Amino acid sequence: MRPLLVFQTDFTYMEGAVAAMYGVVKSVDRDIEIIDATHEIPQYDTWSASFRLNQYMRFWPKGTIFVSVVDPGVGTKRRACVAKTKDGYYIVTPDNGTLTHVSAVSGIEEVREIDESINRLKRDDNKAVSIFHGRDLFGYCAARLASGIISYEEVGKTYPVEEIVKHKITKGEVYDTYARGIFEINDPNFGNLWTNIALDDFNKIFSHGDKIHTTIEHKGEVVFDQVIPYYPSFGMAEDKSVMIYNNELNNIAMAEVVGNLCKDHNLSYGSDYIVTFRKVDNE
Amino acid sequence: MRPLLVFQTDFTYMEGAVAAMYGVVKSVDRDIEIIDATHEIPQYDTWSASFRLNQYMRFWPKGTIFVSVVDPGVGTKRRACVAKTKDGYYIVTPDNGTLTHVSAVSGIEEVREIDESINRLKRDDNKAVSIFHGRDLFGYCAARLASGIISYEEVGKTYPVEEIVKHKITKGEVYDTYARGIFEINDPNFGNLWTNIALDDFNKIFSHGDKIHTTIEHKGEVVFDQVIPYYPSFGMAEDKSVMIYNNELNNIAMAEVVGNLCKDHNLSYGSDYIVTFRKVDNE
Amino acid sequence: MRPLLVFQTDFTYMEGAVAAMYGVVKSVDRDIEIIDATHEIPQYDTWSASFRLNQYMRFWPKGTIFVSVVDPGVGTKRRACVAKTKDGYYIVTPDNGTLTHVSAVSGIEEVREIDESINRLKRDDNKAVSIFHGRDLFGYCAARLASGIISYEEVGKTYPVEEIVKHKITKGEVYDTYARGIFEINDPNFGNLWTNIALDDFNKIFSHGDKIHTTIEHKGEVVFDQVIPYYPSFGMAEDKSVMIYNNELNNIAMAEVVGNLCKDHNLSYGSDYIVTFRKVDNE
Repeated sequence: MRPLLVFQTDFTYMEGAVAAMYGVVKSVDRDIEIIDATHEIPQYDTWSASFRLNQYMRFWPKGTIFVSVVDPGVGTKRRACVAKTKDGYYIVTPDNGTLTHVSAVSGIEEVREIDESINRLKRDDNKAVSIFHGRDLFGYCAARLASGIISYEEVGKTYPVEEIVKHKITKGEVYDTYARGIFEINDPNFGNLWTNIALDDFNKIFSHGDKIHTTIEHKGEVVFDQVIPYYPSFGMAEDKSVMIYNNELNNIAMAEVVGNLCKDHNLSYGSDYIVTFRKVDNE
Repeated sequence: MRPLLVFQTDFTYMEGAVAAMYGVVKSVDRDIEIIDATHEIPQYDTWSASFRLNQYMRFWPKGTIFVSVVDPGVGTKRRACVAKTKDGYYIVTPDNGTLTHVSAVSGIEEVREIDESINRLKRDDNKAVSIFHGRDLFGYCAARLASGIISYEEVGKTYPVEEIVKHKITKGEVYDTYARGIFEINDPNFGNLWTNIALDDFNKIFSHGDKIHTTIEHKGEVVFDQVIPYYPSFGMAEDKSVMIYNNELNNIAMAEVVGNLCKDHNLSYGSDYIVTFRKVDNE
Repeated sequence: MRPLLVFQTDFTYMEGAVAAMYGVVKSVDRDIEIIDATHEIPQYDTWSASFRLNQYMRFWPKGTIFVSVVDPGVGTKRRACVAKTKDGYYIVTPDNGTLTHVSAVSGIEEVREIDESINRLKRDDNKAVSIFHGRDLFGYCAARLASGIISYEEVGKTYPVEEIVKHKITKGEVYDTYARGIFEINDPNFGNLWTNIALDDFNKIFSHGDKIHTTIEHKGEVVFDQVIPYYPSFGMAEDKSVMIYNNELNNIAMAEVVGNLCKDHNLSYGSDYIVTFRKVDNE
């Protein structure tokens, strides 16, 4: 049975790009099963591409091939690659930061630069096209790999794993009486904010049911300052109140119950948002 | 052949939640065919979840398993269940109102509470996670049921069908010279409004081609008051004019032709919108 | 192996219409593989439907069946048809302009009007429904064709290809010192604008690396006037600068690098946008 092909891009479904890319895959091999991870990565945002890939990759069957096309540098000299992770997955992607989180969490065993002389779609009607590598390169190469037309070794030459382009990741820190970190991403649908503080660290000083003095600073200015509870799940606090919980990746996060924290409190994520959780007893 | 697994949630595709959930399903059994019903149910809206499920369920092959995850009470004591309908479908869902319309229209034959000791995903990296039952409970349990790893009986213990949580449904009424009801939902894409008045009832006093005096009250205030036609389909009235038709579920509805009634007339749905259709002759 | 069924509509996933339509397909034949091209064609926009279909159709395996349901005239006397293209595809669609671009580029070999007496879904609960041909007619007929229940000839009677409804297509023109055309569509996600000027024509007077005096007029008023570069891909110009490139269909296009040209410069597409590219030397 062929490995699954799971796609994430920033194309959206607003036009025909996804359909053209998938047509190429099915023209290589009708038996490949294509699954959407998402086509709604924020445009050009390789940080989100990297974060999302790590959010879901480990839940898939070993051998699954992930194709990520968030590619602001398409047509420039950034590498096009296929990475093999230490936990047994393949990722077909521009090497532009998209491998950051998976490198840190799963680890990359080997990475190969796609040989465009073999693994690029060549048709009369796409010869002059330099801007759609999702269709002409990543989708096409991934389909050849999934179908067994090429082996992983035939993707192209290896290059040192150390050369993989990475964003900077920071980890939140926990002290005797407080924990401090940043919001590294949000849940754009429900408006939750996900910190970079690990649950295991946080739980050294906090427990479920604690009321925690929570301060958010944005560029030095305090934009949120409340004592809020820490619970295992939503619905244990009142509607529209703000609470702390651990997210699906076992990091500490904040939510507005049956609401939208980002919208209702005008918050977002990034390294310029500093969040501090303090024990109330110790203030 | 395995039953189809059809998903509806309020997750959207804006982040990695759907992909993590589907990865779990495919890790249980590669041969399960997953289909999106929608991931754009309005957030936390169990009324819409219930309505949409009933809108499309009956058109699927018997035996299809539907997974609905609109779950504002995740992690609280609301039941997680699998219902078997009288017309031969399975629904995996939090028991939180999502079964309202299907209960009324198809009927529920039996309902079982998911036994989390057997049918919940247990991994080192999700042990402390209480907020993602789509991935860890509903998707996982549904995949086990679809693959035949568990029978329906092995989902967990039955509980009385009468205990299923339900929203209140009202039916529009038709009198000698007028019909009255509410807008129970809209079509958020085209802006149409769907009443709770049954076509068969409506047709006792109205016929295609009739001009009908239509009044909409919102919290007691008249917000729409026009004589408009009743036609079998759009395009029989002029562009941007408002008309009455019967929707795909054989209820009476209103639309702005090649327009958006909700937006252009600032209307919405809910029990505080009362719509009255009067025979013009009898005014 | 059954041909693939590829769908494009303007339904969105905001409600249950896609799920009902797909349920009908799977009820006809469980083995049909359904793929979304897109459900986000702008509402009622048969021009976009036509353009998108042509954008991706040729990349699919021969024999693929495309279903397009952008149908402002549903329930009126516009024809419902299945067209067979000269390059070996089938298109199931209302005959309302959706076949414009494919007619011009691939060519239509034969077209048949769907015989509703045979190829329309008949159920007790949809008998009175005139507004959902995606579910009751196009999806159902396409599924019967894909499954082999009917042959192409059994769709219904042929009618003259010349009677197919078409929008007017114009082609941009290239002179000694300038090229002129319109924006025929945009990329709504990245905000790029696609002209109707063919790459081959454009390259008779321009080359990569040229600085080109670019003027956009909207209803006679100049709304953009800059000298901008012509490159094979994005990322060769500075972020947020505007550049010219050739799009995936080998037409000339404009983009704002890592930005959104439409939003940031308040531009859109249509025949009332005239764009002129002039050689700088010759001014």
